[in-house]
Amino acid sequence: MATATGEGLWIAPSPDAPGLTRAVTGHDQSGAPVTLPVVEERPLTIYLNAQEIVTAMTIGDYPEYLALGYLRNQGMLSPGDTITGTDYDEELETIVVRTAHQTDFEDKLKKKTRTSGCAVGTVFGDMMEGLSGLTLPDTPLRTSDLYALSHSINRMPSLYLSAGAIHGTVLCEGPHPRLYMEDVGRHNAVDKIAGYMLRHDISPDGMTLYTTGRLTSEMVIKCALMGIPSLVSRSGFTAWGVEIARQVGLTVVGRLRGQRFVCLSGEERLVRDADLASVPDEPRKQRRKGSP
Amino acid sequence: MATATGEGLWIAPSPDAPGLTRAVTGHDQSGAPVTLPVVEERPLTIYLNAQEIVTAMTIGDYPEYLALGYLRNQGMLSPGDTITGTDYDEELETIVVRTAHQTDFEDKLKKKTRTSGCAVGTVFGDMMEGLSGLTLPDTPLRTSDLYALSHSINRMPSLYLSAGAIHGTVLCEGPHPRLYMEDVGRHNAVDKIAGYMLRHDISPDGMTLYTTGRLTSEMVIKCALMGIPSLVSRSGFTAWGVEIARQVGLTVVGRLRGQRFVCLSGEERLVRDADLASVPDEPRKQRRKGSP
Repeated sequence: MATATGEGLWIAPSPDAPGLTRAVTGHDQSGAPVTLPVVEERPLTIYLNAQEIVTAMTIGDYPEYLALGYLRNQGMLSPGDTITGTDYDEELETIVVRTAHQTDFEDKLKKKTRTSGCAVGTVFGDMMEGLSGLTLPDTPLRTSDLYALSHSINRMPSLYLSAGAIHGTVLCEGPHPRLYMEDVGRHNAVDKIAGYMLRHDISPDGMTLYTTGRLTSEMVIKCALMGIPSLVSRSGFTAWGVEIARQVGLTVVGRLRGQRFVCLSGEERLVRDADLASVPDEPRKQRRKGSP
Repeated sequence: MATATGEGLWIAPSPDAPGLTRAVTGHDQSGAPVTLPVVEERPLTIYLNAQEIVTAMTIGDYPEYLALGYLRNQGMLSPGDTITGTDYDEELETIVVRTAHQTDFEDKLKKKTRTSGCAVGTVFGDMMEGLSGLTLPDTPLRTSDLYALSHSINRMPSLYLSAGAIHGTVLCEGPHPRLYMEDVGRHNAVDKIAGYMLRHDISPDGMTLYTTGRLTSEMVIKCALMGIPSLVSRSGFTAWGVEIARQVGLTVVGRLRGQRFVCLSGEERLVRDADLASVPDEPRKQRRKGSP
């Protein structure tokens, strides 16, 4: 596996990239005409070999990472599957992920469709199944790193800051953001990170996943399945998300804004090395830019 | 169809209802123990007759409305289908919606699974299909009503205010909130409203849908399919959402916070009757409680 080296960001947001936002004209509360950048959203239909899997709504960058990460995080691609290629067709808005052999999932799907006609509902069960027996490596999380990450991520140029209405997820190593993905749905952003890690054989050891989104069960499950031992968010929790995190030994910190945060799982792994007096409160601009 | 009468709220949030939140203990940034209310999240598997459709993550109130609204908004239940009953099993976390006859969707699904093995990807196509030729009735939207709604919704006791990490969607009639649903996912909240409207035969004429969530294509499509002519949000837009709204004649107002808002579709239907000087800015408490 590759290990991260250097201080650089492997992928940063591209707020000015063509095709990710569009200037849309409307009117403000006073009736004055306004033009604002609005994020794009387009369908991408993901296939696993000949099998149509899902149509995701995405800003459209990194379709390969999105498809690979989605299939991996849903348990449709196993570590044993050899990926032979991906075919992205921009015009048809499709991407096909090809494997050397038919996957277990395609096999299971065939059996399932013979009995009940569809496999939509199995996906959730498959994700939960992937968790059974999983325990993440006991990994310390430094509060000095948390504050450093929050500070640099909130100030980095992004679609989140320039257009809003988008979620960001960042794979971090200590105090360094490494992969900063944004997308219309918070699950797409984390799936694109999973796809990058799969494609480039990145080890999750010691990494932290930062997200602007809520710490729901699905976010916690994805993080755990990716093998990342720490999950951090500006936003809040759901009870089931916390329960699963405690079961698998995932450290979870939420509501990280300025100096404040709440740790609901893994308190014993937190290393409280930050000097709170030196952590500035969050500027109002960041505070307002929620992306519900 | 029933028409709304009186000023009352038909369904209000139940922030103190047992089972919707849980007190979870953790630690804050200073290491002090904290106990906070955290929203519950549980799976609900929805069946249409013998057909398993989807497993949704929900706070768990109103499973019947969620199931009916989901099936209706996805085009799996047509207006012509006679619903003979719903069976909710709390222990199994399942709900079965029964119709007098097999639905078109089940029929279509059978054909689809014969050819490609699954119908996951068809759902999106079906939603788009439902939009073709649709034009919403030309309905004025008063800015005085917008501000009155924003003011009363933001101050009403809710899970959103007490626990956060949840989305709210409110069916409104003029300045009056009528149905205020909350759920972990913003789509569940709007589906519960659709289910209530279906179950109680509520006309969408002249109604406004208010949501804390973003105005993505899916939210716009659902609102349009429900026949509601105005859609309002605290949050931002996606370009495709705006495009679809303009096509079907849906008035869309976003970023409604305090005095401010942006109208990106249906400016010609806005009646600017509010005296801006009398609209207070949003208190900081509401501004902070984003639920991304």
